[in-house]
Amino acid sequence: MSQTMLGRILSIQSHVSFGYVGGKAAVFPLQCLGYDVDVINTVNFSNHSGYGRFGGTRTTAAELSGIFGLMEKNELLLCERLLTGYVPGAEALSAVLGLAAKMRRQNTELIYLLDPVLGDAGKLYVAPDTIPIYREALQYASIITPNWFEVEILTDVRMTDLASLQRAIKILHNEYHVPNVVISSIPLREWLLKALPADVHTQVAPSDLDFLACIASSSHVTADTSTKPAVHVACIPCLPGYFSGVGDLFSALVLGHFNLPRTTSAPAGGAPETPLSYAVSQALTKTHAILMLTHQHAASLPEADRLPTDEELDTHEPDRKVRRMRGRELRLIQGQDIIRGTRPSLYRQMMPWPSFWET
Amino acid sequence: MSQTMLGRILSIQSHVSFGYVGGKAAVFPLQCLGYDVDVINTVNFSNHSGYGRFGGTRTTAAELSGIFGLMEKNELLLCERLLTGYVPGAEALSAVLGLAAKMRRQNTELIYLLDPVLGDAGKLYVAPDTIPIYREALQYASIITPNWFEVEILTDVRMTDLASLQRAIKILHNEYHVPNVVISSIPLREWLLKALPADVHTQVAPSDLDFLACIASSSHVTADTSTKPAVHVACIPCLPGYFSGVGDLFSALVLGHFNLPRTTSAPAGGAPETPLSYAVSQALTKTHAILMLTHQHAASLPEADRLPTDEELDTHEPDRKVRRMRGRELRLIQGQDIIRGTRPSLYRQMMPWPSFWET
Repeated sequence: MSQTMLGRILSIQSHVSFGYVGGKAAVFPLQCLGYDVDVINTVNFSNHSGYGRFGGTRTTAAELSGIFGLMEKNELLLCERLLTGYVPGAEALSAVLGLAAKMRRQNTELIYLLDPVLGDAGKLYVAPDTIPIYREALQYASIITPNWFEVEILTDVRMTDLASLQRAIKILHNEYHVPNVVISSIPLREWLLKALPADVHTQVAPSDLDFLACIASSSHVTADTSTKPAVHVACIPCLPGYFSGVGDLFSALVLGHFNLPRTTSAPAGGAPETPLSYAVSQALTKTHAILMLTHQHAASLPEADRLPTDEELDTHEPDRKVRRMRGRELRLIQGQDIIRGTRPSLYRQMMPWPSFWET
Repeated sequence: MSQTMLGRILSIQSHVSFGYVGGKAAVFPLQCLGYDVDVINTVNFSNHSGYGRFGGTRTTAAELSGIFGLMEKNELLLCERLLTGYVPGAEALSAVLGLAAKMRRQNTELIYLLDPVLGDAGKLYVAPDTIPIYREALQYASIITPNWFEVEILTDVRMTDLASLQRAIKILHNEYHVPNVVISSIPLREWLLKALPADVHTQVAPSDLDFLACIASSSHVTADTSTKPAVHVACIPCLPGYFSGVGDLFSALVLGHFNLPRTTSAPAGGAPETPLSYAVSQALTKTHAILMLTHQHAASLPEADRLPTDEELDTHEPDRKVRRMRGRELRLIQGQDIIRGTRPSLYRQMMPWPSFWET
């Protein structure tokens, strides 16, 4: 990949001094891929909130608008790609998504990845008044990367079977006009496992591990708009415990690999790809390899630095939690060859799901 | 170089959304070298001040102290190395240098590179009340990287001949207790040219180009404290026009290459090195190669984006200056293989100056 051919990305998300979430998880990988990255910090915190003890400043809507205005005046909003992640509060979020709307109007070719950071595993991280703002902004996005819980919040559909999954994806494509939808992770429950295409199903079935599915759906990949969206899926084994910043890294890598000028075509006999399924395959491959590296590192630490999650014990002894979090920060620096693609990793290829819309 | 062996660096300096100065010029290169870099932003600006139009927020002393306190409480001040650059205002600077003093007390092995960002080419960038704060903090530094003007301000010595140059360096070593002094750039005037060792002198003499000298002086490199400091020098051809962020990149690279575990010894017949002269040689080599790349890029732009500096015209038409600045942002991303050392660059080796103290 020629490092001079890739363009600019504007990344608007959180900054932490220590560790790798938000911009700290996204910017360095994109720079390694060869992008100039412009960086606007929506918060400046000491470390991520999972440590329990954290703090710093939130950038206000007025401060954000001030930066946007100066960049516009200086003609520095030159990016071909835009990445937005966590923004604290409805007012600041409106400012960021207002900029996204403006950039979309000025450049129909803009590739905008919106990661609607709302929550995970049934828990909302943000104030409920941000939800309608995200819904309103979806129309400007080229790609979105919600997890299953964020899909449910955005669409008001509880995904309990294939029909409700179809409905949620349809709403995102048709009502919210998002051409590329990635459900970054969804637990592989019985109904989903059963519905998977045979080649994906057999990869998962013989194992004792828990798996997460990742689903990508691209509408209008052909000129024929009556064609159903192209759906791809892959299953990834879960690693024990929680790692922070994984979604931020994944989203950055999806954007970084989407619609690149590629010199090689799909491998002979390989599955049909869309620009989205290729980008997600790359992002899954690299994110999972970094996670493995992080998991191995965490497992190698002295016992005091890897005590298991126990909310009661953590409450009594906050340092217990801090030590655990510290040992589980993403090993991005040590794994930079993975990001660059110069250290081979097991390829996590998204497989076509041709029967997805058939039921 | 094994990427898992290098440790952590805490970088405290300015942040700009667009372009490469301060932390944006320092952090990515250090990450490429294999360091985990913790990043505290002393300002969050749209772009550097050279554009004329710029703005954003300055981090207050209280906000900085808040971040430092949380990191300390969470035992996140784990770094073996510390890098401080531009800090706006005396109060914020006191907070930063107070942290440096504390980290030095807690860890005598800390490698602290203090870049005393005061001004350049006879012009002070900062309020005069920051000068005594820098002087007070010099005792905590392992390495400093002032330009000639900053040396004059810190030492109150005007460098007009070899004797005054000697005096300035002696003051920094003996009165301010800085073991490693780098004068990052000093114009190669007649008196300096004449004093250079013969092998450096012959490199420079036949050329029509302007040169800058870079001088490194390490005290106590042997156990014998009566030994004079070891002085090294190199001359680098000037490139036309001004580039921003060069000093920030250079300082980061000096810190990143200082006292590394090295597998190879000095080349056979090579000049005697100190850990400082090696680090500065590497930093000069990579900084100059990045500058060449940037210069070539700027020269390839359409004429409207590379109009020469003309203060009167710039005042009448601010966009003229903005366009020039934009085209001269460091090509760090495109030159990342230079930083990593995988793209060969002309080696700018610091040469010993054994006769330096003899006059």
